[in-house]
Amino acid sequence: MTPEQFRRHGHEVVDWIADYWTRIGTFPVRSQVSPGDVRASLPAAAPEHGEGFDAILADLDRVVLPGVTHWQHPGFFGYFPANTSGPSVLGDLVSAGLGVQGMSWVTSPAATELEQQVMDWLADLLGLPESFRSTGTGGGVVQDSSSGANLVALLAALHRRSGGATVRQGVEPERATVYVSSETHSSMEKAVRIAGLGTDAVRIVEVDGDLGMNPGALAARLERDVARGYRPVLVCATVGTTSTTAVDPLAAIGLICQKHGAWLHVDAAYAGVSAVAPELRELQAGVEWADSYTTDAHKWLLTGFDATLFWVADRAALTGALAILPDYLRNAATDAGAVVDFRDWQIPLGRRFRALKLWFVVRWYGAEGLRAHIRSHVALAQELAGWADADERFDVVAPHPLSLVCLRPRWPEGVDADVATMTLLERLNDGGEVFLTHTTVRREPVLRVAVGSPATTREHVERVWALLTEGHDWLAADFAAQAAEQAAARAAERARAEETPAADTPA
Amino acid sequence: MTPEQFRRHGHEVVDWIADYWTRIGTFPVRSQVSPGDVRASLPAAAPEHGEGFDAILADLDRVVLPGVTHWQHPGFFGYFPANTSGPSVLGDLVSAGLGVQGMSWVTSPAATELEQQVMDWLADLLGLPESFRSTGTGGGVVQDSSSGANLVALLAALHRRSGGATVRQGVEPERATVYVSSETHSSMEKAVRIAGLGTDAVRIVEVDGDLGMNPGALAARLERDVARGYRPVLVCATVGTTSTTAVDPLAAIGLICQKHGAWLHVDAAYAGVSAVAPELRELQAGVEWADSYTTDAHKWLLTGFDATLFWVADRAALTGALAILPDYLRNAATDAGAVVDFRDWQIPLGRRFRALKLWFVVRWYGAEGLRAHIRSHVALAQELAGWADADERFDVVAPHPLSLVCLRPRWPEGVDADVATMTLLERLNDGGEVFLTHTTVRREPVLRVAVGSPATTREHVERVWALLTEGHDWLAADFAAQAAEQAAARAAERARAEETPAADTPA
Repeated sequence: MTPEQFRRHGHEVVDWIADYWTRIGTFPVRSQVSPGDVRASLPAAAPEHGEGFDAILADLDRVVLPGVTHWQHPGFFGYFPANTSGPSVLGDLVSAGLGVQGMSWVTSPAATELEQQVMDWLADLLGLPESFRSTGTGGGVVQDSSSGANLVALLAALHRRSGGATVRQGVEPERATVYVSSETHSSMEKAVRIAGLGTDAVRIVEVDGDLGMNPGALAARLERDVARGYRPVLVCATVGTTSTTAVDPLAAIGLICQKHGAWLHVDAAYAGVSAVAPELRELQAGVEWADSYTTDAHKWLLTGFDATLFWVADRAALTGALAILPDYLRNAATDAGAVVDFRDWQIPLGRRFRALKLWFVVRWYGAEGLRAHIRSHVALAQELAGWADADERFDVVAPHPLSLVCLRPRWPEGVDADVATMTLLERLNDGGEVFLTHTTVRREPVLRVAVGSPATTREHVERVWALLTEGHDWLAADFAAQAAEQAAARAAERARAEETPAADTPA
Repeated sequence: MTPEQFRRHGHEVVDWIADYWTRIGTFPVRSQVSPGDVRASLPAAAPEHGEGFDAILADLDRVVLPGVTHWQHPGFFGYFPANTSGPSVLGDLVSAGLGVQGMSWVTSPAATELEQQVMDWLADLLGLPESFRSTGTGGGVVQDSSSGANLVALLAALHRRSGGATVRQGVEPERATVYVSSETHSSMEKAVRIAGLGTDAVRIVEVDGDLGMNPGALAARLERDVARGYRPVLVCATVGTTSTTAVDPLAAIGLICQKHGAWLHVDAAYAGVSAVAPELRELQAGVEWADSYTTDAHKWLLTGFDATLFWVADRAALTGALAILPDYLRNAATDAGAVVDFRDWQIPLGRRFRALKLWFVVRWYGAEGLRAHIRSHVALAQELAGWADADERFDVVAPHPLSLVCLRPRWPEGVDADVATMTLLERLNDGGEVFLTHTTVRREPVLRVAVGSPATTREHVERVWALLTEGHDWLAADFAAQAAEQAAARAAERARAEETPAADTPA
């Protein structure tokens, strides 16, 4: 494709996206295709001859859009949001157009240095400790996901704990232990498996009524394990759990980690970016104890996936775990020690120029724009929680300090509450106006309403609330009618049984 | 940013990229900034108020471009290429604009199903075995890099070897062994470290004169290790090593792996995609023995980073190692087992919709376009090798079946050949017209000329050859002059010493 063809088709694609964003509210949020539908609409083999761009663009509407669940839809309240924005998409477009590979400083110095600078900016914006700045012993780096960040944090912790012995000798699965709560994200357990420890190394610490980790239980668990000869490697504390945005108390946990030499990793994947608003930083009090910290700009900070912001207080532990320098990667700048090579801060070797999209987002919105974005969603969620609190049809089942509200519908006596709740969820999602997901709190399913799509306004939150209450009323009535019908049927059955002697019973 | 603002600024960015591609040949290939230059041109803190898009675009020229090493430059012959193309950039742009997260089938069915289909297409295009097709026990998936692919292959192998015990109990670093050659990419060793085995588990098998793994040495090493109680987990065979594109003999290695129950992983990161041209498939004879296989569309198949094509013959081993299903990810489609959830095929949870760019590339170029692309680079490299073979100033030091040629300059007697070779490299790279990197073959530095940037034509290969020979002549003359000068100085010193009695020697 020549530059001039790219210019023409590029304009077409930009227009297609602008049109998509304009009409996004007209799609059902959750894709309504069945398994196999999308594949069935595709040819069995690749084309032998190249096709025109018109045909490709047309298939976006014919094949792709019906199979898309619209994460940027204002009615998307599922999971956590996956924000994107115009400046993010355009920063990413520049990155794709440059097509550079930032594995080493020398392979594109701007990719490394812009990332260092933007990560320092973001540490400032979030009020994170000095130890995370590139000017000290630590530093920030963009990772592919908080799953990846949790893994590299664990690898750094293993390296530090073993005094570097893991590099040659590997891990000691029978001795190493890692501490989480029942609410910690599953990616931490996955990291433990990937790192070769196995899930037996995971210690699940009790949570309090607010679903935050109980520091007393953590301390007791650590004491017991140390007494038994285990070697605590890492404690994962979460700020804003995936299930309910519960918050583990960092200050108390930090002290305990220090006592035992355990690495404190803070997984603030969703909630961390809320700290752009100073009044929300109290949730993270004690963050200065953290050895590492992760939060996703691609969840709630207007930056497209992937853009995980990861900081470490001692970068030597991280690069000690991950650096390898074969001859074909040697270069004068690296040999002189004058530069940072981010390939040694992550799992893969290659790197995209992801700092560009963050730079575009921060500059376009400014600090005040990012604060306004976060605050508006928090305010909407608090309104929703207020409506639910005041309504006898729903319980708000967990603290909701940010923009996620977890609701448990109340059902009439005799109704299977779990089935009814999941039926309500499916009904809403089938309707197409909104999309919610569920979680389990104290063994019961609850509905998660995550306010966070950039296009979501008060009107959409009002609408999801109306759909929830209407759906509840309709289902409650339906279940009640069913229950009444069943009761009537049973009564009729009993009546018939009393009138008619059983045929096989001797008179 | 509203859709209409996005439309306007999107056109501006598309134009900026089209202009960049048009003028790319005017930039020095390797960035000429010094460490710290880029950061020094950036503000110390993020802006409080949002900025206009003009200011951001202007800084691309002011701040970013001087700090970029231009991987898409026709004079880029370094490392391996990192191809991109118009259709790839536009496919990625659509992906960014949709902003969907394809971790599970339900979160955007098209993201999963298009990926399955395109990976099946590509398995066909590359002539890969039936076992890798999604219709059988295996399947293909897009990974972030071949580093990531090497890691997940190892995790799957560990899972299979242990009968699934690694999930709970972790690895056995003191027993597990992994086989590579001295030419295997460093990411395999990195994977071994990440997976908790430590580098002591790595067995480095001898290579033959062509730098391919010696199967006899592999067999002997395996026998010895098994006899000593080790448990061979995985053999990594490379098709197209990073250093010289050497090829390990897959057929012989496959038989040996089968005998010992070791997982055969084929790392064809660079060379694998060459198999779109059937006449180049012989390099991979025996690929049907592979348990897993990786090749990078983002190196040499016109698709921007990242787009690693990874196939596995037994997907259950992979998902057995990597799947975790917390409540908040449960959904009807997953529970019914009717769909594939690609989050369980990779390290991170989240996924971009990377199949779009592959789909755009394959459709725009067609199979014949991809073949022509590969063949043209192979032909150019063979021409270059021919010129070097016929020239007494350079040796071609390794087989060059594809598009990489490794050259060792010959230097006059008395010249430090290693210093001279590296000086020639720096001289060429400082010149800015071309960019090369080096490697070490049999302990000597050699220059790698990797023909593979999409814009590279015969004219650019002629030019790099002219620069190499001119640079060689200039340096050889310079070194000879230096040597003559030194010899003259030594002679003069000797003459002076003979004429003048030493002052401190008694007469």
